Amino acid sequence: MSPASRYAYLGPEGTFTEAALRTLPEAATRDLIPMVSVPAALDAVRNGEAAAALVPIENSVEGGVTATLDELASGRPLMIYREVLLPIAFALLARPGTPMESIKTVTGHPVSQPQVRRWTAEHLPDAVWESAASNADGARLVQEGRYDAAFAGEFAAATYGLEPLVTGIHDADDAVTRFVLVGRPARPAAATGSDKTSVVFWLRDDHPGALLEVLQEFASRGVNMMRIESRPTGEGIGRYCFSVDCEGHVQDRRVGDVLMGLKRACEQVRYLGSYPRADGGHAVERPGTTDAEFVEAADWLTRCMDGRG
Amino acid sequence: MSPASRYAYLGPEGTFTEAALRTLPEAATRDLIPMVSVPAALDAVRNGEAAAALVPIENSVEGGVTATLDELASGRPLMIYREVLLPIAFALLARPGTPMESIKTVTGHPVSQPQVRRWTAEHLPDAVWESAASNADGARLVQEGRYDAAFAGEFAAATYGLEPLVTGIHDADDAVTRFVLVGRPARPAAATGSDKTSVVFWLRDDHPGALLEVLQEFASRGVNMMRIESRPTGEGIGRYCFSVDCEGHVQDRRVGDVLMGLKRACEQVRYLGSYPRADGGHAVERPGTTDAEFVEAADWLTRCMDGRG
Amino acid sequence: MSPASRYAYLGPEGTFTEAALRTLPEAATRDLIPMVSVPAALDAVRNGEAAAALVPIENSVEGGVTATLDELASGRPLMIYREVLLPIAFALLARPGTPMESIKTVTGHPVSQPQVRRWTAEHLPDAVWESAASNADGARLVQEGRYDAAFAGEFAAATYGLEPLVTGIHDADDAVTRFVLVGRPARPAAATGSDKTSVVFWLRDDHPGALLEVLQEFASRGVNMMRIESRPTGEGIGRYCFSVDCEGHVQDRRVGDVLMGLKRACEQVRYLGSYPRADGGHAVERPGTTDAEFVEAADWLTRCMDGRG
Amino acid sequence: MSPASRYAYLGPEGTFTEAALRTLPEAATRDLIPMVSVPAALDAVRNGEAAAALVPIENSVEGGVTATLDELASGRPLMIYREVLLPIAFALLARPGTPMESIKTVTGHPVSQPQVRRWTAEHLPDAVWESAASNADGARLVQEGRYDAAFAGEFAAATYGLEPLVTGIHDADDAVTRFVLVGRPARPAAATGSDKTSVVFWLRDDHPGALLEVLQEFASRGVNMMRIESRPTGEGIGRYCFSVDCEGHVQDRRVGDVLMGLKRACEQVRYLGSYPRADGGHAVERPGTTDAEFVEAADWLTRCMDGRG
Repeated sequence: MSPASRYAYLGPEGTFTEAALRTLPEAATRDLIPMVSVPAALDAVRNGEAAAALVPIENSVEGGVTATLDELASGRPLMIYREVLLPIAFALLARPGTPMESIKTVTGHPVSQPQVRRWTAEHLPDAVWESAASNADGARLVQEGRYDAAFAGEFAAATYGLEPLVTGIHDADDAVTRFVLVGRPARPAAATGSDKTSVVFWLRDDHPGALLEVLQEFASRGVNMMRIESRPTGEGIGRYCFSVDCEGHVQDRRVGDVLMGLKRACEQVRYLGSYPRADGGHAVERPGTTDAEFVEAADWLTRCMDGRG
Repeated sequence: MSPASRYAYLGPEGTFTEAALRTLPEAATRDLIPMVSVPAALDAVRNGEAAAALVPIENSVEGGVTATLDELASGRPLMIYREVLLPIAFALLARPGTPMESIKTVTGHPVSQPQVRRWTAEHLPDAVWESAASNADGARLVQEGRYDAAFAGEFAAATYGLEPLVTGIHDADDAVTRFVLVGRPARPAAATGSDKTSVVFWLRDDHPGALLEVLQEFASRGVNMMRIESRPTGEGIGRYCFSVDCEGHVQDRRVGDVLMGLKRACEQVRYLGSYPRADGGHAVERPGTTDAEFVEAADWLTRCMDGRG
Repeated sequence: MSPASRYAYLGPEGTFTEAALRTLPEAATRDLIPMVSVPAALDAVRNGEAAAALVPIENSVEGGVTATLDELASGRPLMIYREVLLPIAFALLARPGTPMESIKTVTGHPVSQPQVRRWTAEHLPDAVWESAASNADGARLVQEGRYDAAFAGEFAAATYGLEPLVTGIHDADDAVTRFVLVGRPARPAAATGSDKTSVVFWLRDDHPGALLEVLQEFASRGVNMMRIESRPTGEGIGRYCFSVDCEGHVQDRRVGDVLMGLKRACEQVRYLGSYPRADGGHAVERPGTTDAEFVEAADWLTRCMDGRG
Repeated sequence: MSPASRYAYLGPEGTFTEAALRTLPEAATRDLIPMVSVPAALDAVRNGEAAAALVPIENSVEGGVTATLDELASGRPLMIYREVLLPIAFALLARPGTPMESIKTVTGHPVSQPQVRRWTAEHLPDAVWESAASNADGARLVQEGRYDAAFAGEFAAATYGLEPLVTGIHDADDAVTRFVLVGRPARPAAATGSDKTSVVFWLRDDHPGALLEVLQEFASRGVNMMRIESRPTGEGIGRYCFSVDCEGHVQDRRVGDVLMGLKRACEQVRYLGSYPRADGGHAVERPGTTDAEFVEAADWLTRCMDGRG
């Protein structure tokens, strides 16, 4: 298979990430390659071994989030081309024939634990939790007989020869994980009218109000932030970069204007792409922020400089 | 004389405005025409009867300020090409031979009164104040014998056949009036590096924080406001426009960006010109706001849209 | 008459200010004293010669506005206790029997001129304008035969033996002037639920954004500014104080909190009073800014400091 | 041993957290209890089984950060009483006698991997990385012979019978992890002059600019934010809470005022304590934000309400 036909993803097989990847129509015609970690999946793209990689970026049950944010913020540039939202519900997987009453040890990725804690306290009050390197790895350890049951996606049952004792487990209603399809930088797809733009920025210095000033760049153009996360830069306590998703496409004038504002106001900015929103939502345009108004203002300025304002 | 050789000014002869106009080198070769009011002076320009008009705009001792602001904000557009700063000191003018002790009535423009009140209380505690239509008109009324003495510019003495009993009168130290030379709209003179830009804007609506949002357009580009004055729009109590001077020239990218921001954010904007600062001061450039950084940000955005960010 | 029975006002008799004063019920039992100027009217209060003074503060047709703002901002403190709104319409007053066709000269206060200019251009295109020290003074000069007609309030006709040729003249629809009743400082009247608070503040320094920071004090508590005017402080070009009216009463927690914020953030603050709104309007309370929420937040902070947060 | 003598920490034995805990003088007289996870350590405090717990909160090499943030933000309230900064450097631990050349597999917590990746690529280019549930657990797996070497703290060598082949490994200079000592809510220790306050808040709604408005509460009182992290609330994509450390103590008036502002502006606020800064730094006091100025402003407001402003 050629690299162009390969999509990498955060493995092992049987993770929610694989399930998310399989919701993409083009996945049917690609070779799906499980990778050991988010960095490994993204490096496969950087090195040309895969055309793209699907990794969790938000609210993950598998711990990929900070790794994803950090990887996108550093190293050779990558861009986001798609997002996938996957409702999260766990199944309790055990070896076939295991009765609920016999379950004394349960496992799963540490990040999954808080998402099933209430359920476990109620239904398996005496079970001991042991962390595994991934939910799928927990399933494998159950297969090997090391633990009695694993919390994982129901789809992982077949892979590891287990059976789901209970399905649809999730302490929080509406829990969902967001994944992004990442590739090498290229021209973003055209705006669809329901788009999202991702960017990472590093503040110029940490004077009081530095973050405030940068957020003002968004607010002053009426561009709604949908996500903001701070990440340590690794240069010592108190130094952060910020990862932000905002409504709109780089081709929208107000979004382009925000990006230029960030570029001027920040120590560094990395544009991570503009891509269709999985929720299909639309930005509310505040008066004064439409493309037409941006063009009109630029024309007016030209006239002013010409004495015809 | 052709209209091109005529400069109008707020008269009558002998006002501080005339004195300010005569500080301009080109005034020596122009026909200086006193006008009855600021509107009349500016209409002379609008109608082509004068090439330019000098009118007081700030801290005036003759009441021209609000009339000037309102006239520049409405009617056919005009532009500011120069500013003149004139230190203000009054002389007490009386008919030749008048002893201080005999002064029972003093006159002057109502706006002048607070500027000489303390001096008057000390030196002429029993004198009665009567307002005149202008300081020069007060001098004329003294000439006609209606009042005993007038507060006016020392230069007005000759015009009205009076003599200065006292000079250098001013309650506040460092009082100064600012005048502007106004002409029909044309391409502003090139940036000198020590420039000022004037603009009037009308807020889109009066929701809490509307003014704040607009001032943010200046602050976010590090453009310092040097003057802000609110003026009622005449559309009822609580409706204002704002007249602002800021540092820099329309050709400075950050100033142009502010103007475009105002254009988008406001109901209406009127650009009043960019011209050399009379005080010779220079703007401090905040990091991220130089022309080079604006160009760099625009180039970067182009690269982002092209997949080369 | 004792001073307590005297109300001063900006005279002379027959001004709009007198008309406004007569709309107050208590005016019927007071001695109404015309004063030569706004400073004179306010000094009468300061000196105990009058219990209160009515002076124009906004959109005046008689030029009292800046004098009023400056007088309230300096000198011995005064406080505002009432406001009066008066629709402004001029009458053209002439000596009895004067035909319209014979009017060659018209007079009035310079501030009135722009408010009748359009009407004059249409109905008296050839008439020459001459400024008078006040509208009422213009009427007096017509009485003396110096000019043919005066623009003034219709109520001035009787005082000066003139007759109104035309009434209801006003270029702008809905023109209105706002007057304030000023007294010596005392405890403000209790909140009515429809109140306004006036304050003057001086910025600590003129760094870019200083005004912005102060306006933020209002915005962050959801307190709507109804009027903001800048006034030169007399300490040289570029130094201003700001006169602000905002919605609400000093007894409203959010307004008190704004005032404390101004006190800390500004070089100087002068509280000018809380009084009923003449327009009867009510502030919209933004979530988080009610009295109850202020009290709750203070209680919570106390609990936090006590380990019970 | 009584619970009062017990300090829990994120185990197992041999973690950086244990090393950090041992830097506290009082640790010498406490029973130090390793817990399987951050939630378990904090629950031990909540349940009265331990007097306090030390857990990593920032820049951790062991993945405790988000668990810590989420645990402090939810469940029964806890408070932070101390912070510890520990420079992070890894040792490469192997069974005694292992030569570098024979190392084919290395392990460690997934969060540690990016912190040693560069070093590994240079010195062990062919070694395969396998994730462990913690760095100490990785050491145990090396002890059991499952992997050849583990990245962990040098102090873990003795616990697991390993020897450090290389020490002082850290890709980033100045890497440091911050730990907090957490207990049940009580009155915070008195201000030392070098303090820090921690708080979690939930935005009232996600209108554009909601975060901006809340950060303004800090900026407007000159209170510097030292850390801000967003965390999903578990109520679905796009819903966040924010965990913030700021300079100063709840007893500082400006900090108390910020907290009250947050309380009013936010859906919910949880105060997490005020405690001495481990870096010994001091806040710069902006003009207008000292305790004295807060007191003065409150006194002035009282006088205003009394007619003596």
